[in-house]
Amino acid sequence: MLGTLLYGPRDVRCEEVAEPKILKPTDAIIRLSAACVCGSDLWPYRGLNEVTSPMAMGHEYCGIVEEVGSAVTSVRPGQFVVGSFCLSDNTCPHCRFGFQSSCQQREFMTGAQARFARVPLADGTLVATREIPADDLIPSLLATSDVLGTGWYAADAARVQSGSTVVVVGDGAVGLMGVLAAKQLGAERIIAMSRHKTRQDLALEFGATDIVAERGDAGVKIINALTNNVGADAVLECVGMNESMQQAIHCARPGGMIGYVGVPHGVQLDGQALFFSQTGMLGGPAPVRRFLPYLMDLVMERRINPGKVFDLTLPLADVAEGYRAMDERRAIKTLLRV
Amino acid sequence: MLGTLLYGPRDVRCEEVAEPKILKPTDAIIRLSAACVCGSDLWPYRGLNEVTSPMAMGHEYCGIVEEVGSAVTSVRPGQFVVGSFCLSDNTCPHCRFGFQSSCQQREFMTGAQARFARVPLADGTLVATREIPADDLIPSLLATSDVLGTGWYAADAARVQSGSTVVVVGDGAVGLMGVLAAKQLGAERIIAMSRHKTRQDLALEFGATDIVAERGDAGVKIINALTNNVGADAVLECVGMNESMQQAIHCARPGGMIGYVGVPHGVQLDGQALFFSQTGMLGGPAPVRRFLPYLMDLVMERRINPGKVFDLTLPLADVAEGYRAMDERRAIKTLLRV
Repeated sequence: MLGTLLYGPRDVRCEEVAEPKILKPTDAIIRLSAACVCGSDLWPYRGLNEVTSPMAMGHEYCGIVEEVGSAVTSVRPGQFVVGSFCLSDNTCPHCRFGFQSSCQQREFMTGAQARFARVPLADGTLVATREIPADDLIPSLLATSDVLGTGWYAADAARVQSGSTVVVVGDGAVGLMGVLAAKQLGAERIIAMSRHKTRQDLALEFGATDIVAERGDAGVKIINALTNNVGADAVLECVGMNESMQQAIHCARPGGMIGYVGVPHGVQLDGQALFFSQTGMLGGPAPVRRFLPYLMDLVMERRINPGKVFDLTLPLADVAEGYRAMDERRAIKTLLRV
Repeated sequence: MLGTLLYGPRDVRCEEVAEPKILKPTDAIIRLSAACVCGSDLWPYRGLNEVTSPMAMGHEYCGIVEEVGSAVTSVRPGQFVVGSFCLSDNTCPHCRFGFQSSCQQREFMTGAQARFARVPLADGTLVATREIPADDLIPSLLATSDVLGTGWYAADAARVQSGSTVVVVGDGAVGLMGVLAAKQLGAERIIAMSRHKTRQDLALEFGATDIVAERGDAGVKIINALTNNVGADAVLECVGMNESMQQAIHCARPGGMIGYVGVPHGVQLDGQALFFSQTGMLGGPAPVRRFLPYLMDLVMERRINPGKVFDLTLPLADVAEGYRAMDERRAIKTLLRV
């Protein structure tokens, strides 16, 4: 079958690979309905993580169950399923606490930019729809697997609620999904910090009420003016750089929460400054599994359309161009037809 | 009247000072029912903050209203009142959000280790009891002004709730109040980290179910064992050193919250480590005013007895010995008869 392998910096290839097989009784094999490229795929692509042997890429997935291991009871061949990029048993204490991304048996999904993929811990990980979804819903269902679930977690961790004033730092796919999540959670004001016209437009479409193009101190100054010098109730940090994190902290009101989902790179927090700012913080790899049934329902009922975040669609064979377009910021997020 | 002045490191004196006067129409003058020494008074006492001119000490207070400024409407002479160490208008957006310690008009109380004290922003700051409390309730009412309110905020920020497993890092007066708060908030298990017999005993009396004497990695290992390798739902950090903060982070389960109220000294947080631990954090100067009416009611109804945290009582004239005893850890907290 066709699959995607990363050989080294900026060397990603679609080629013939062996079809995945059931390796453990808790595995399932799914036939992917579509695949996509994640912002985090760009780290190894850009050489930030060393690649010693060809790496099977892709961790966002949805599709039809092809085969299940002997221990799998909650899904069966023929069902349409979505799972999180974090594989979890959904029964351990961390899962039951709603933090499936720290499951005691946690594994990370790989190899989903392909025709078929193996999903370990299938019972805990996969969520099936009641019926096979219409084709036009596939992009949005695929989005629930990671990018929407991650933006949603940012909003949940930042405790967005009805009437909240929310700032979203970062206009990548996750930040845009954070805007959508804040809107769904009842935020009254959603200020998206973005410098790019196409992303600003999408943010507005997803529910942003204000756009701030400035960054750093200039951006904070505008947020203060927009909030009557109070600051935001909730800030979604969807970048992970030190500058963006400081910006997030300075946008929050005392007692406001920052939900941060951009993996921090070079972020150092001064305890005393954080103390006197009275900013709350909660982040980490998103426990998408917690939100997945709800988010899938929202999509199936056509109440949200997160699939709009895909602004480039390519056949799987052209995966290299999909990476390039995102790396060069020509595309927000690439969907791959498999 | 007698008042307390800090002249320099370890040079604190009780001497004749001028009686305070109404300076603004929003002020009140109170006759203190008792005074006390705070752990944070030890910072300037130990020379951590420079003292250039004699500094009027004391920010925890309760007593009888003696006089009010012309604009004060919510309290009147003769009433018994308690206020927070943070003076606040209780009407600004930060106050209404429950973060009175970041009030837009915030001032810090001073000069309360004395016979009389001036309380600015009296309407927003002071809470009166319905009747004059019995003498034996004074220590507990005084405790609500800062030390209990701060321990309570730590528990609230850490989102302690019914059934929670809680770890309290720090066995100073605030940590012990954190134990009491966790108990009142319904925690099922309260693990107090303490190496001192008298403080361990008081922690047990306030509701601790377990005592861990070990610190650092050894302490974390025991917490892990006690929680079946899950970690605590909530951790109260009541010290403010880097070691204690790291200990707190490592005791929390993924998704667990740390409420931190020890002013951080030399605390640096690595963003990526915090991200992958999925530890939530909220701290800062406690918005005691938010909790004050409730805590005063608990005391008046004799449902809690936080005054037990005072294990040394001295006349105001002996304030220097009160500081020394706390500095040398011979006393947990000193009450001063005024």
